[in-house]
Amino acid sequence: MLAVPQFMSFAAPLALQSGASIHAYSLAYETYGTLNADKSNAVLVCHALNASHHVAGVYEGQPKSEGWWDNMIGPGKPLDTDKFFVIGINNLGSCFGSTGPMHTHPDTGRIYGADFPVVTVEDWVNAQAHLLDELGIHTLAAVMGGSLGGMQALSWTLQYPDRVRHAVVIASAPNLTAENIAFNEVARRAIVTDPDFHGGHFYDHNVIPKRGLRIARMIGHITYLSDDVMNEKFGRQLRDGDAYKYSTQDVEFQIESYLRYQGDKFSETFDANTYLLITRALDYFDPARQHNASLSAALAKAKAKFLLVSFTTDWRFSPKRSREIVKALLDNRRDVSYAEIDAPHGHDAFLLDDARYMALVRSYFESIDAALNLPTTAASASALKAYSSPAPTHQSIANLVPSQSRVLDLGCGDGRLLAHLQAHRACTGYGIEISDTHVLACVQAGVNVIQLNLEEGLSLFEDASFDVVLQVDTLPHLRNAETMLQETARVGRTGIVAFPNFAHWPNRLSVLMGRMPVTKRLPYQWYDTPNIRVGTFKDFEALAQKNGLKLLDAFGLQDGAEVRWLPNARAGTAVFRFTRVEI
Amino acid sequence: MLAVPQFMSFAAPLALQSGASIHAYSLAYETYGTLNADKSNAVLVCHALNASHHVAGVYEGQPKSEGWWDNMIGPGKPLDTDKFFVIGINNLGSCFGSTGPMHTHPDTGRIYGADFPVVTVEDWVNAQAHLLDELGIHTLAAVMGGSLGGMQALSWTLQYPDRVRHAVVIASAPNLTAENIAFNEVARRAIVTDPDFHGGHFYDHNVIPKRGLRIARMIGHITYLSDDVMNEKFGRQLRDGDAYKYSTQDVEFQIESYLRYQGDKFSETFDANTYLLITRALDYFDPARQHNASLSAALAKAKAKFLLVSFTTDWRFSPKRSREIVKALLDNRRDVSYAEIDAPHGHDAFLLDDARYMALVRSYFESIDAALNLPTTAASASALKAYSSPAPTHQSIANLVPSQSRVLDLGCGDGRLLAHLQAHRACTGYGIEISDTHVLACVQAGVNVIQLNLEEGLSLFEDASFDVVLQVDTLPHLRNAETMLQETARVGRTGIVAFPNFAHWPNRLSVLMGRMPVTKRLPYQWYDTPNIRVGTFKDFEALAQKNGLKLLDAFGLQDGAEVRWLPNARAGTAVFRFTRVEI
Repeated sequence: MLAVPQFMSFAAPLALQSGASIHAYSLAYETYGTLNADKSNAVLVCHALNASHHVAGVYEGQPKSEGWWDNMIGPGKPLDTDKFFVIGINNLGSCFGSTGPMHTHPDTGRIYGADFPVVTVEDWVNAQAHLLDELGIHTLAAVMGGSLGGMQALSWTLQYPDRVRHAVVIASAPNLTAENIAFNEVARRAIVTDPDFHGGHFYDHNVIPKRGLRIARMIGHITYLSDDVMNEKFGRQLRDGDAYKYSTQDVEFQIESYLRYQGDKFSETFDANTYLLITRALDYFDPARQHNASLSAALAKAKAKFLLVSFTTDWRFSPKRSREIVKALLDNRRDVSYAEIDAPHGHDAFLLDDARYMALVRSYFESIDAALNLPTTAASASALKAYSSPAPTHQSIANLVPSQSRVLDLGCGDGRLLAHLQAHRACTGYGIEISDTHVLACVQAGVNVIQLNLEEGLSLFEDASFDVVLQVDTLPHLRNAETMLQETARVGRTGIVAFPNFAHWPNRLSVLMGRMPVTKRLPYQWYDTPNIRVGTFKDFEALAQKNGLKLLDAFGLQDGAEVRWLPNARAGTAVFRFTRVEI
Repeated sequence: MLAVPQFMSFAAPLALQSGASIHAYSLAYETYGTLNADKSNAVLVCHALNASHHVAGVYEGQPKSEGWWDNMIGPGKPLDTDKFFVIGINNLGSCFGSTGPMHTHPDTGRIYGADFPVVTVEDWVNAQAHLLDELGIHTLAAVMGGSLGGMQALSWTLQYPDRVRHAVVIASAPNLTAENIAFNEVARRAIVTDPDFHGGHFYDHNVIPKRGLRIARMIGHITYLSDDVMNEKFGRQLRDGDAYKYSTQDVEFQIESYLRYQGDKFSETFDANTYLLITRALDYFDPARQHNASLSAALAKAKAKFLLVSFTTDWRFSPKRSREIVKALLDNRRDVSYAEIDAPHGHDAFLLDDARYMALVRSYFESIDAALNLPTTAASASALKAYSSPAPTHQSIANLVPSQSRVLDLGCGDGRLLAHLQAHRACTGYGIEISDTHVLACVQAGVNVIQLNLEEGLSLFEDASFDVVLQVDTLPHLRNAETMLQETARVGRTGIVAFPNFAHWPNRLSVLMGRMPVTKRLPYQWYDTPNIRVGTFKDFEALAQKNGLKLLDAFGLQDGAEVRWLPNARAGTAVFRFTRVEI
């Protein structure tokens, strides 16, 4: 795919968050794919610290000039340019094409340098919106970004809630932690205290603060990688031979050589003032700030549907940070799916090929594309119905869920039951899953899914925030079974729990004969069962009573039929519907 | 406690690892407490990057001049100077008293500066040994250190195996990872590329490379803390007011202010050449290097007993690194205990007060002191006997363990069974425990204990490295029960497994009545039991057969008596002794 950089100039001044403004600015951008007739298939891709509008493809005659997210975006790729019209925009203040500190201030005729105004994520988004206006695109099918790009995607949903259908926010955070700011500050101090910086007007002196830029880049590189990946790539390998030189200043280890090389390269291509501006934009981003530090209040404005992805080894923007965004979206009852990819590469993982990550983003964009090409309700209904022939157990449980309920399904598996409830009972809600395969299946089924280990509790969810909370065959997997029962009753106005009944007569018989049972319903051996606890119908009755739960219904299920006479002996599955309070 | 710095000069040249040598050097040191008559109570405390010989106490008239480990060392403290004679030595190349780059080269009459020879951990240890020679101390009761100090403690056991009885190695590592080296390299580059560094001879120019030192210190500070602690201390708090200034260079956040302050302070007190030397000593330390990267081969020389401690949030020297040392010691069948403290403070935790950490070190030194004051065998026997009245179950199992066996006890609890086996059957070995309380109890009982989650497997242990591996009431807690059974048979020449028998008749009766059993032997409710699986005597027979294990003995235990007739029905506990192969 060939890429062609384009430029658009704006005469009207852009008011900045700081109170300053910038005028006579221009933005560099590229587009890939074709805008459809109703202009509904546009996807904006926002860049992070060290990138540009050159997102995908190559420049003519430069086969090695791939865009920075070329593995993700292009014909047939996860974000498929055969289906979507993709736009990459270089941000204001950058040194890669859009107006920045290396350009000339129109009023003074001098190079901006340190006088370039401080720009924020919000300012960038405003500028991007102006460019979309010029392209005649009102509504984005999606806005997508990783790291600082994810912050822009999030900010789009708050600044222009009616112009974004979907936001894909990857390896990002709702703001920087103290540690993040600290690393930025060290990098900035290295640049600013470099004698060649000259207060940011080094251009006039024909020098570049390379020493500072090198240090900044070295620190950056370390924090983008995981300790493990660094060890794998470099370990303690020496650069030359296998004897120590015993020198404090010479390159001794490969990692030193690599970092020095990266630092040198960066110091020759990146602008020092841009580095200060972009790290400051990172520091300043904090949508909760104007809402008494409540991210939930800040995200109340968002209307988009969200996909969030984080990576387990990312210690710069850790999964915890993505979960904060997820929680705020849940508080606002927004559509959101969240996946936590167990990739080894650290923060850089968002730019690399991980099969699960790629499959997930692909599936998400496929569902966006499917919805674009069909009337909305028909699209989702059709997608769901193809996938919603529930098992008999599921059918019985679905019957307990009132129409139009807001449902939380704890341990939702491949999302089959939720899909059925959405398609046939007009329910909404979320599934919780720990398994990668199931999370992907849910995204493919068009079901909101949050990847979460239930052992960590349900602190993501507020009291009585669901009509129904389901635990179908989930309880036997929980170490914290009683706590989760209480949590189920706290979060849901009603709870429905179903689990294998250990007192079903074949199980009783097996124990009577001196062996742990292995049956169709409890198919595992005692030594490899994923069920870490078993209980009986009667046991659960006692537990519900102990916890002050009011049973609304209780019965057994056997061979797809309800068992209401002697369920403790006659049913392989126990089913309870309950509530914490009078409803 | 008053501290008095002392100095000792050495005329004989010290041959350095690099091939160079240093002569006419002197070492600064302090001592606390009293050396006993047979000079057996000396403890050497080694310092890390930014510390000195001033380990504990205060200088006269300077009440705020506490030594850097004053919370750990002093009268009545964990390392009790009422019992031990503690020595702190400043290392060669430091800027705090011992001969270093700021001193004058005796041959040239010039300040050493960058000409100070590269010194290694091994060189420091050699110099420390010379000082001990002068003090007339041949054998150390213990050598102790955290971080880089822990590396010196480890190196002592390799360079002078006959002069160290115990090594206490805290928050340390067998070498630096690529990431560790990378952070050091950035700090060094910042110093070396500071125009005021003048190739390390800045003293002649009456300047100090403060810019570089500031950057170095800021990076160091970030890596000593955990992200969580930084957020707790500083968060996103602004330094002035609550409005952004929109500036790239001014201090905006508290964390920036703190780091700048720490950087400034450091740049005025620390020597740039010392910083290069000490970080290089860290980089170079790698005892496995001369042994084909085998730490086990390197540690074969060690004779000391070890206590290793790591901290969960330490991302500079993570628990994984301490476990590498533990594994190498286990491979060499050395006495070693290992605790992993779940402290929030990151690498700095080793200098802070954590009750579990302090209690552990205290107990370890108490056991050293007890052994010093009694003939060796009597001491340990007496300590153990006081603590070795086993439960009847334990007595029966102990009877299955041959005298003088090497024993691994998986899930050893408070170490009671191992203590009994050591005291009464002359056994040796290790317990594995996950619980902090139990780990402390084991150290108090004089039992080697390794803090480890058995779910992570037994990769620490080589094939057939024990005569007997015990699993007493451990199997019900294991998700990976079958794997651990295989591991038990792999690591031990024989295995002994005991667990509650679910087919004991009261349990059968309970299930027959439709409820999960709650008995004296299975005292938990189904919803809160820590037993994540249950099985029967007969189930285990089948599992053993499936895994090709040869049963050497199998019986039940009930009310302290062996049950050999119908044990599956008549015994609350099932006991199996087995082997993987013919023995």
